[in-house]
Amino acid sequence: MSEVEKIYEGKAKILYPTEDPEILLTYYKDDATAFNAQKRGQIQGKGEINCTVAAALFQLLESVGIATHYIDRPAPNQMRVRAVKIFPLEVVVRNIAAGSLCRQTGLPEGKILPQPLVEFYLKNDELGDPLLSSDRLFLLELATKEQLTQIQEMALKVNDHLREFFWRCDIILVDFKLEFGLDSSSRLLLADEISPDTCRLWDSQETDPLARVLDKDRFRRDLGAVESAYQEVLQRVLAQI
Amino acid sequence: MSEVEKIYEGKAKILYPTEDPEILLTYYKDDATAFNAQKRGQIQGKGEINCTVAAALFQLLESVGIATHYIDRPAPNQMRVRAVKIFPLEVVVRNIAAGSLCRQTGLPEGKILPQPLVEFYLKNDELGDPLLSSDRLFLLELATKEQLTQIQEMALKVNDHLREFFWRCDIILVDFKLEFGLDSSSRLLLADEISPDTCRLWDSQETDPLARVLDKDRFRRDLGAVESAYQEVLQRVLAQI
Repeated sequence: MSEVEKIYEGKAKILYPTEDPEILLTYYKDDATAFNAQKRGQIQGKGEINCTVAAALFQLLESVGIATHYIDRPAPNQMRVRAVKIFPLEVVVRNIAAGSLCRQTGLPEGKILPQPLVEFYLKNDELGDPLLSSDRLFLLELATKEQLTQIQEMALKVNDHLREFFWRCDIILVDFKLEFGLDSSSRLLLADEISPDTCRLWDSQETDPLARVLDKDRFRRDLGAVESAYQEVLQRVLAQI
Repeated sequence: MSEVEKIYEGKAKILYPTEDPEILLTYYKDDATAFNAQKRGQIQGKGEINCTVAAALFQLLESVGIATHYIDRPAPNQMRVRAVKIFPLEVVVRNIAAGSLCRQTGLPEGKILPQPLVEFYLKNDELGDPLLSSDRLFLLELATKEQLTQIQEMALKVNDHLREFFWRCDIILVDFKLEFGLDSSSRLLLADEISPDTCRLWDSQETDPLARVLDKDRFRRDLGAVESAYQEVLQRVLAQI
């Protein structure tokens, strides 16, 4: 790996080219960051766990007709994916109020939303990933109206399937972040990852608001037992897939 | 005045009841605040200036068929207005990028927008008046879809007329904040005020980015000559009305 020059290194993954320009190799890291990288650390085994969970979920979504960038997983922490031009958007789907939605609107954490809420944030660390209204999104020319509608519909479909799948894992899918891109034929693909790094996942058998947390909030909020929570998600996902 | 108990005291105005429950008396203060009231001061004569400017602009808007809460101005810093139930929304119309739009999106200050941008912020000091997507606005049940459409249309109409009026005053209307309310017959009225406190106004004859500022940004950004800028706006408005 070290002899190939990386294309891009993000906070949780490194992208390498392959011999096929349409295919990239993603290496999932154990590095963890939060609060726009102001908090940094490592979560032992996270790279393998997230890569395995993401691969399982991408395959699940592919099986119901949702196009993703996933190709295969040549090693436990490596994923081959289709190269896409990423929209600079964090697409967040929320089923239950948590995190910035609560901080910004005063809604109480844990409030079940009347319907899933799809939100768009500008993927820009320097600006702190701000919330976008659709007018701001169009003003910044981040997507066309048609693309935005397609992304929104796909995000809701992903939510339907993931929520049902996690429910079978005795996990409540509170919210999650998706990223989308266009492949060389301008086909919209679900990209990035779906993992305890990018989802809020609550143990449905646990009512204690801290004990139920099975996702990166354990790291963000210093709740401890971060590795075991990630392991727990992995085991439950593998048991249901 | 002091013997009548006030209904509400805001950062820039005090509301008093009158004998008619449908009518309130607004007293415009010289107090100035910025950055969610973290910065406080006084602008000499501001109460009278803003009340006079707002009265002139409300009358201008009424004359072109826009329903406002304005009734009359019994004293230089006092305005009688129709009582309304205010939507807890700050409706911002932008013609040119400035302020939080630039900080949050990275757009350069002074960039002319391809079309006026109408934005909604939650009127809540504790939460820092956050930007609302329309989905968040509906989730918080701050207005119905019909009300939002009506507010948006009215805001754009206000912008058309104010922009043209200020242009005649050699002033560029960069952006401004409106508030709306429903009277006892559920009629939508433009409420609050329109003044150098609530508008970004740039002298169109001046190209220096600091010298051209004729609004509360002089106070916010410690640019000096605050009173004379407010006086200048007043004189130009009175000369054109």
